[in-house]
Amino acid sequence: MTEPSKTPLLDRVKDPADIRDMSDEDLRRLADEVRDETIRTVSFTGGHLGASLGVVELTVALHHTFNAPEDKLIWDVGHQCYPHKILTGRRERMLTLRQGGGLSGFTKRAESPYDPFGAGHSSTSISAGLGMAVGRDLAGRKNHVISVIGDGSMSAGMAYEAMNNAGSMDSRLIVILNDNDMSIAPPVGAMSAYLSRLISSKPFRSIRHFAADVAKKFPRAMSEAARKADEFARGMVTGGTLFEELGFYYVGPIDGHNLDHLLPVLKNLRDDAEAGPVLLHVVTRKGHGYAPAEEAADKYHGVGKFDVVTGKQVKAQSNAPSYTRVFSDALIAAGEKDDRIVAINAAMPAGTGLDRFAERFPDRCFDVGIAEQHAVTFAAGLACEGYRPFATLYSTFLQRAYDQVVHDVAIQNLPVRFAIDRAGLVGADGATHAGAFDLSYLCCLPNMVVMAPSDEAELVHMIATAAAHDSGPSAVRYPRGEGVGIELPTEGQVLEIGKGRIVREGATVALLALGPRVQACLTAADDLAARGLSTTVADARFAKPIDADLVRDLAARHEVLVTVEEGAVGGFSAQVLKLLTDEGLLDGALKVRTLVLPDVFQDHDSPSRQYETAGLQPADIAATVLSALGRDDAAAAKAAANPARA
Amino acid sequence: MTEPSKTPLLDRVKDPADIRDMSDEDLRRLADEVRDETIRTVSFTGGHLGASLGVVELTVALHHTFNAPEDKLIWDVGHQCYPHKILTGRRERMLTLRQGGGLSGFTKRAESPYDPFGAGHSSTSISAGLGMAVGRDLAGRKNHVISVIGDGSMSAGMAYEAMNNAGSMDSRLIVILNDNDMSIAPPVGAMSAYLSRLISSKPFRSIRHFAADVAKKFPRAMSEAARKADEFARGMVTGGTLFEELGFYYVGPIDGHNLDHLLPVLKNLRDDAEAGPVLLHVVTRKGHGYAPAEEAADKYHGVGKFDVVTGKQVKAQSNAPSYTRVFSDALIAAGEKDDRIVAINAAMPAGTGLDRFAERFPDRCFDVGIAEQHAVTFAAGLACEGYRPFATLYSTFLQRAYDQVVHDVAIQNLPVRFAIDRAGLVGADGATHAGAFDLSYLCCLPNMVVMAPSDEAELVHMIATAAAHDSGPSAVRYPRGEGVGIELPTEGQVLEIGKGRIVREGATVALLALGPRVQACLTAADDLAARGLSTTVADARFAKPIDADLVRDLAARHEVLVTVEEGAVGGFSAQVLKLLTDEGLLDGALKVRTLVLPDVFQDHDSPSRQYETAGLQPADIAATVLSALGRDDAAAAKAAANPARA
Repeated sequence: MTEPSKTPLLDRVKDPADIRDMSDEDLRRLADEVRDETIRTVSFTGGHLGASLGVVELTVALHHTFNAPEDKLIWDVGHQCYPHKILTGRRERMLTLRQGGGLSGFTKRAESPYDPFGAGHSSTSISAGLGMAVGRDLAGRKNHVISVIGDGSMSAGMAYEAMNNAGSMDSRLIVILNDNDMSIAPPVGAMSAYLSRLISSKPFRSIRHFAADVAKKFPRAMSEAARKADEFARGMVTGGTLFEELGFYYVGPIDGHNLDHLLPVLKNLRDDAEAGPVLLHVVTRKGHGYAPAEEAADKYHGVGKFDVVTGKQVKAQSNAPSYTRVFSDALIAAGEKDDRIVAINAAMPAGTGLDRFAERFPDRCFDVGIAEQHAVTFAAGLACEGYRPFATLYSTFLQRAYDQVVHDVAIQNLPVRFAIDRAGLVGADGATHAGAFDLSYLCCLPNMVVMAPSDEAELVHMIATAAAHDSGPSAVRYPRGEGVGIELPTEGQVLEIGKGRIVREGATVALLALGPRVQACLTAADDLAARGLSTTVADARFAKPIDADLVRDLAARHEVLVTVEEGAVGGFSAQVLKLLTDEGLLDGALKVRTLVLPDVFQDHDSPSRQYETAGLQPADIAATVLSALGRDDAAAAKAAANPARA
Repeated sequence: MTEPSKTPLLDRVKDPADIRDMSDEDLRRLADEVRDETIRTVSFTGGHLGASLGVVELTVALHHTFNAPEDKLIWDVGHQCYPHKILTGRRERMLTLRQGGGLSGFTKRAESPYDPFGAGHSSTSISAGLGMAVGRDLAGRKNHVISVIGDGSMSAGMAYEAMNNAGSMDSRLIVILNDNDMSIAPPVGAMSAYLSRLISSKPFRSIRHFAADVAKKFPRAMSEAARKADEFARGMVTGGTLFEELGFYYVGPIDGHNLDHLLPVLKNLRDDAEAGPVLLHVVTRKGHGYAPAEEAADKYHGVGKFDVVTGKQVKAQSNAPSYTRVFSDALIAAGEKDDRIVAINAAMPAGTGLDRFAERFPDRCFDVGIAEQHAVTFAAGLACEGYRPFATLYSTFLQRAYDQVVHDVAIQNLPVRFAIDRAGLVGADGATHAGAFDLSYLCCLPNMVVMAPSDEAELVHMIATAAAHDSGPSAVRYPRGEGVGIELPTEGQVLEIGKGRIVREGATVALLALGPRVQACLTAADDLAARGLSTTVADARFAKPIDADLVRDLAARHEVLVTVEEGAVGGFSAQVLKLLTDEGLLDGALKVRTLVLPDVFQDHDSPSRQYETAGLQPADIAATVLSALGRDDAAAAKAAANPARA
């Protein structure tokens, strides 16, 4: 006799159509089952647990009320989408989450028709939703478009731009503000739920519409006053003034864990045919329904594998500190010596390691929210006043502030320091979070100094170098994950700008790498030595300005020169090739090859598999050299060292 | 006997200190003189007249009230700064405005201590100001920081991010919203001025402060209600709710052309010591005080030289249509054939030529305001629905949407078309508006197709190609200014993706250019032919994917290969060099050189002077070839063809 299923309702759900006719009581039980399933899944795979647990009831209510995939349901950021994936035909594959070949940790168009827009970065859902809504109107279709966005994502300018534009258009768009920053007392909750149901219902909206039409016939001042009185009456209870100002019809706040509150309001919004955008304010709690997550919401934002009963996370053993930790220590050390050093991050205090800097120097650390554009120009303003700002951002998020890097920092040659974490491939977070392009988009900028450490000790020196370099902007890019376990210097040394170093001397082959791929080059050099090829390994240290003397020297003394970097085409290698061609150093017999990230968006996978796919493993480097030399052991060398790919 | 000066008061102003003690009556007369001087200057130089005329009184009032350069006065965008330049020691140089070696058309740190932050792009002033305010507080200084920002700039997310962050901090910052979108009737103006004076005065703010403190001691709901009641009472008259929601103390609106209204309010704000940011809402009229500008505000945004009396602009003669005009016609033609074609711009309908598309297809054209981030992701949403969006932006402004290009378009491989105007050098607008980096930041992106037309007929074909290319994103970058005068095709032909063309056959030298520099290569080829060097000229058409067969063929058949592009390092040339080195095509005797924009931010100048400075003139191309071949006529050739630089 088999044990009865613990998820009898969920077992019946193959796709969202299966929950359209469920009773409210069944929906409540289904939500509980989805919550258990989400916890169980993430305990095996790791992932964004807290955010997903916060939207279990909302997800169930949305799929019950709306008709996906015809109705478009867009999850902002996408890290809260596990319940959505469980309900949209991907339950069986949930244990492959964030693993090579498995489900993405975010929404992804290529993965499912129920993911109409992929994400990873925040605050895109309203823009995308408005585009879909306008497209629907142009085509004369009638489906709904619903964007679900968190309160944190609302601090990004992009969300504001989208709301401002949506508010001035007649397109019907439903935005659900998932607010887990607010706590409401039960009586306010009930009253608000009642009012929300009322103001989202047709009769109320029609009366209001009529009143607004009448008011428009009065002179502007009076019509404005009438509009504000209406806003005010509802705003007193609801707090939606900001959204009303931007042109949204505001409903809420309601309790996002209470289906009795959610369902009638969502049905009203579904059946309402008024033009223009609506904002439904839903209050939820991150980690809701799972005590370990509720009690430590931060810890459960992105978690590793854990024990379901105790909530205890399985920590991977590591002998070396993470680059983030080394950066954090080095910046604190710099801050001790120089009180002009200040630090800025955009809603990533723990991820960037600035939480510890903030603890030590609370007045000199600024978390500006999800607002990378502002973060960079705010740093520029501090630099104008003689401060030495470190704008500390992930490589992928710095893309949000590219114009500010160009226009506010580089053109004015202001000494803003960019500490760029998660540069290169990032493993389980996949393509949306990879830091693949920073070398390409920074090395093309005049005035910019760009460094990358080959190990964690080098990172210490580079932070000291950036702190000291005050005549213009600089950037240090370093990867996700642990260093190589090298001993750390007691004090960072200021490096000479634009000077690399030779880490191993050889005669025939030169490997010139930027960043931690220097380690892969050392392994490749061992392999090449074993094949009788004496190999020089150089650590470029600077992607810009490159060490011209070093490059000339390597070019003059070797038969083959291979550059290696963990970045897309157009970055470090482009700087090296520009110098070599400008000076005619390739006019002779020197053979040059460049290894960069491949011209594809690499999916999530284990870091080592990602390096293999990218062709940046030691075997790839050695094979490139052998092939350039026309050696027939090239292919064999590659296959031997990368058995998984052979 | 000399004629008496028409500007007796202005003649006495060497720097802003000279107007601190002026009487209100003298300030009024000074403002009139500054207005006349501004009109006179721009009639000779061209420039942003309307914006500058709108802030004459505000500029005078600010310099009278505040103590620049110790107090920091930041002009958003900076195009309204001519009166400011006239009053801050630059009057004598105003006739050099926007000319090579002369004053910048924007604020610029390197130009004057009275320009604490340079600009050109919009919406940066609040972030920079907040950085300066926080730096001042950290250093224990007491100066004021004032950011002046237009209502249009407020639509950019960056301004919102900054306001949101400023509103949550205690730093004292004065933001002046220069609103020229609003018209207020005189009675409202007077009443509002009175109220603004009242609420910006110390006694009122103190009482209010006390009330807020008391309210904080009540439970949240009541305190919120009290806060909202206060907001409401003032919001009824003033309309500042949005700013209050973001945490600003709101004052206004007041008439920005009336010194009797401006001066007392500014003095109150100067003398007020309350913590936190303040927003003063000032209503002005673009072009105020000069009838031709007032009557046609749009036309006088950026003007050429004109006749002061009639306002008639001196039009430069041109035989060829502008690239913008050709794009506009081509897009309309594409739109006639395919109703899935839609177009998006960010507050630049005339500049991008989309005004004409909007006239023809009002439902299929979207101006989203100064909101490039939203523009791109909104286009991505339209692409999801099967539309064929053209996101039409200047190269320099596309930088604002870089993350959206990467994350929302390229990763998802959505067929958004980027029509990139003002790519390359832009003449009088200078470094802040140059489109130098788009090739570098786009060619590194997987999935992206990047084209550049060598003449205006090619642009027609490329718009047809982009319209037809529906399997992923594409971009067409084209320059500011006129085409070469070539006959336009009656219909655009769809080009094969990644295929270039040979425009002149030769034997020894190969010039491979992208975009209109193909024309410079043809001239260089004439010169080289005269020196006995048979020269092939190829038009790459595609920067990505490059035409690998064409590159291989050129490499195989010539002694020298020179690439030429109007973009920074890391773009087209990096793609060519990557292919050449990957395939070992540089292992032999082929000599390769790449000509790109130099690694400096080039100041404003005439286009031809800018090309000379950049080293992209025909003579530079020829000299590069001669030098690569070791010919001793290389230097002489260059000097002869560029006499101005010799």
